[in-house]
Amino acid sequence: MLLPILVSLIYAEDDLTSFIISAGITGLTGLVLFFTFRTEHDLRLREGFALVTFAWLSFALFGALPFYLSGYIPSFTDAFFETMSGFTTTGASILTDIELLPHGLLFWRSFTHWIGGMGIILLSLAVLPLLGVGGMQLYKAEVPGPEHDKLKPRIKDTAKILWEVYLLISVVQMVLLYLAGMNVFDSICHTFGTMATGGFSTKNASIGHYQGATIHYIIIIFMLIAGINFSLHYKALRGRVSSYWKDPETRFFFFLIGAGSSIIIAELYLSQHYSLFEGLQKGLFQVISIITTTGYGTDDYEKWSSSSQVILFLFMFLGGCAGSTAGGIKIMRSLVMVKFALNEIKKLIHPNAVLPIRIGDRTIPKDVVGNIAGFFLIYLGIFVCGVLFMTLLGIDFMSSLGAVAASIGNIGPGLGSVGPTDNYAHIPQLGKWTLSFLMLVGRLEIYPVIILLTPTFWKE
Amino acid sequence: MLLPILVSLIYAEDDLTSFIISAGITGLTGLVLFFTFRTEHDLRLREGFALVTFAWLSFALFGALPFYLSGYIPSFTDAFFETMSGFTTTGASILTDIELLPHGLLFWRSFTHWIGGMGIILLSLAVLPLLGVGGMQLYKAEVPGPEHDKLKPRIKDTAKILWEVYLLISVVQMVLLYLAGMNVFDSICHTFGTMATGGFSTKNASIGHYQGATIHYIIIIFMLIAGINFSLHYKALRGRVSSYWKDPETRFFFFLIGAGSSIIIAELYLSQHYSLFEGLQKGLFQVISIITTTGYGTDDYEKWSSSSQVILFLFMFLGGCAGSTAGGIKIMRSLVMVKFALNEIKKLIHPNAVLPIRIGDRTIPKDVVGNIAGFFLIYLGIFVCGVLFMTLLGIDFMSSLGAVAASIGNIGPGLGSVGPTDNYAHIPQLGKWTLSFLMLVGRLEIYPVIILLTPTFWKE
Repeated sequence: MLLPILVSLIYAEDDLTSFIISAGITGLTGLVLFFTFRTEHDLRLREGFALVTFAWLSFALFGALPFYLSGYIPSFTDAFFETMSGFTTTGASILTDIELLPHGLLFWRSFTHWIGGMGIILLSLAVLPLLGVGGMQLYKAEVPGPEHDKLKPRIKDTAKILWEVYLLISVVQMVLLYLAGMNVFDSICHTFGTMATGGFSTKNASIGHYQGATIHYIIIIFMLIAGINFSLHYKALRGRVSSYWKDPETRFFFFLIGAGSSIIIAELYLSQHYSLFEGLQKGLFQVISIITTTGYGTDDYEKWSSSSQVILFLFMFLGGCAGSTAGGIKIMRSLVMVKFALNEIKKLIHPNAVLPIRIGDRTIPKDVVGNIAGFFLIYLGIFVCGVLFMTLLGIDFMSSLGAVAASIGNIGPGLGSVGPTDNYAHIPQLGKWTLSFLMLVGRLEIYPVIILLTPTFWKE
Repeated sequence: MLLPILVSLIYAEDDLTSFIISAGITGLTGLVLFFTFRTEHDLRLREGFALVTFAWLSFALFGALPFYLSGYIPSFTDAFFETMSGFTTTGASILTDIELLPHGLLFWRSFTHWIGGMGIILLSLAVLPLLGVGGMQLYKAEVPGPEHDKLKPRIKDTAKILWEVYLLISVVQMVLLYLAGMNVFDSICHTFGTMATGGFSTKNASIGHYQGATIHYIIIIFMLIAGINFSLHYKALRGRVSSYWKDPETRFFFFLIGAGSSIIIAELYLSQHYSLFEGLQKGLFQVISIITTTGYGTDDYEKWSSSSQVILFLFMFLGGCAGSTAGGIKIMRSLVMVKFALNEIKKLIHPNAVLPIRIGDRTIPKDVVGNIAGFFLIYLGIFVCGVLFMTLLGIDFMSSLGAVAASIGNIGPGLGSVGPTDNYAHIPQLGKWTLSFLMLVGRLEIYPVIILLTPTFWKE
């Protein structure tokens, strides 16, 4: 919170005290907890799950203070929703007029994305592989990891490398946005929103606020980058640029984007009568914004044809690559599930054949395939329960589909009354808490949160 | 087609010649094929898959002749759609005024359901277990089966037993409907629609045509019966009535119906201001009609709350028990998938524990769990592709969701423009062929049809 204090000082607006008080409360609580509970022992599996969940939860709780204390978001439910949406890099907002906020709060809002993104890269590439969550153990070999059941050592080194990459790419985007005509403040905030695949903007019209194709294409490219595994970026920066093409997940990611945007661009051209140039720009922007779960907008896709909307809705589930800042189910998991399903068909014809699932040059172990299938089912199960619960609160079917898919997938805008030109202000309180919970569940790859809700976890 | 000829003679209406010509064409083709291709060798695995698919396909092709030749359904696409909907026990209709049809055609239309239902019981309890389709091998032990890779012998005996049970229950329902005030013709046709979980009625208002609760409750009970494994009915008829309670699938089926209808009845009472009696009758009827994939209606559920609609929509996927005439994914598969997902959560806490999946007192082998997961994924995959394709044809999102779910699940009425008070007449031609295909795919438990589309099947 020291950075937004600095911003607040520069712009000399009325949010300074709220930041100072919030930083004080947060710092004090942290110090008390640190000295009360500090210990030398290594983290165990269960503690790992609890730590991950409570870290994000306390980020959102304390991070909500500046919004609440400043009076700019007078309801604590709303402030919590907005902050959880920030730290989970979702980008769903309860604000009806973003541009009313002082610069300090706008900065803090976007900054929660960027911090959340940092956390996610570390989580997905260094922590979850050790916890064995939903197939993430496939990424164990990619970074040097400590022995089983002990989580602390060496994670530090991994973190340092990945964060340097994250920072470096962010700086490049910032500079490019500035050169393309955005002011410094907006370039910083939009970089935070892009690199974390978050989606908070400083403008009510999101990226649609900016005329001219340059800014749009810069953001398209950096959303794409943010949706790719950061360990590939690390390899590329060390000279192995071919790593991208060699990676089956990245290839499938590009294939899906190509297929989806081709149909949408064709439809924008043929039935919406956009020029080919405009269709390309808007179609590509929206497809990449949704599949990377960023949620930035340049057009109202609810006015597009229903098939374009179905494609975007499906892409909300796909998400980006594992090890990126993107949410959703992740391309790798979909790839494994597609191959698994095809294998099941082949098995019927050759009942006795051994048909391993191969991705690139590696064979996916059977139990990992099971983990991924489990992840898929639980993700869908939570989605279905979420939709049912939202309709019980009186939200219509389509808006519930959109709100739940956009929350658990960490996208932001959904369908119906929570579409790209709407916001989440009108959702009832209980619905906001539910969606905040779904953002957390989706962001932490389901298991770390769900596991805390099982009796088995608490039994010794 | 001899039976509808009889009906046509009784009522002396203008559909007689079309039946005679259709019977002639069908009989001649059958004779030619029989004498050209007759062989003594046993069926092999691949032939089994092809036979199953082509049987239903040719049923629908030849079965469409009377509708087409009589001129009552002047488009062959429509006649094929209606007949495929009949033989797959779907009940989706392109007719805008059912009551215009002569009795012979109405009888034939309902009779296709009943024949389709006979086929399905045999398919699911005697054929698919041998083909190893999507977990159906779990039912191998329930009926005495021939050795592997040879399908013909003993299926005959199984068929005879199951069809006797089917016929017996049908006769009971017919008599009860007649005693409750339906005329003989309508009791017969509605029994066909109920026992096959089909849903074709002889009335435009479906079961809503009939006043008084008795007929409604008779149909509720017989839809329920038709949604339960017929080998359990066989056991019950031989005195072991407790078989129902001992069967985990049936228990879970009742649990789901109880849970779903409780919410819906409460909502009908509280927000739709139905009396408790009316809410109970209409809620229970609709829940059971949908979960058993019958599709009969007594009320316009699109006027109900959105949460009631979400529950009904989910129930379209669940379907009835395996070995019943119901379509959908089947309760057993959902049960296995729920246990599988819960196991995956437990495994994270106890990474080295062996946690078999148990249903009742049997352990489900790992590869069967895999088969079922594969079935689930492919079912969802086809659903998603179907929805995308329908929206590409210009159908709106909600109607596409409804039409595809109702076709692949063999329900009949869907949502939006194909809801319970609408019909499929307005769907474009290509859409009707697609939905007919989806009915076939869903009815034959996906694999037998899909497998014919893979290159592996045709390679030797």
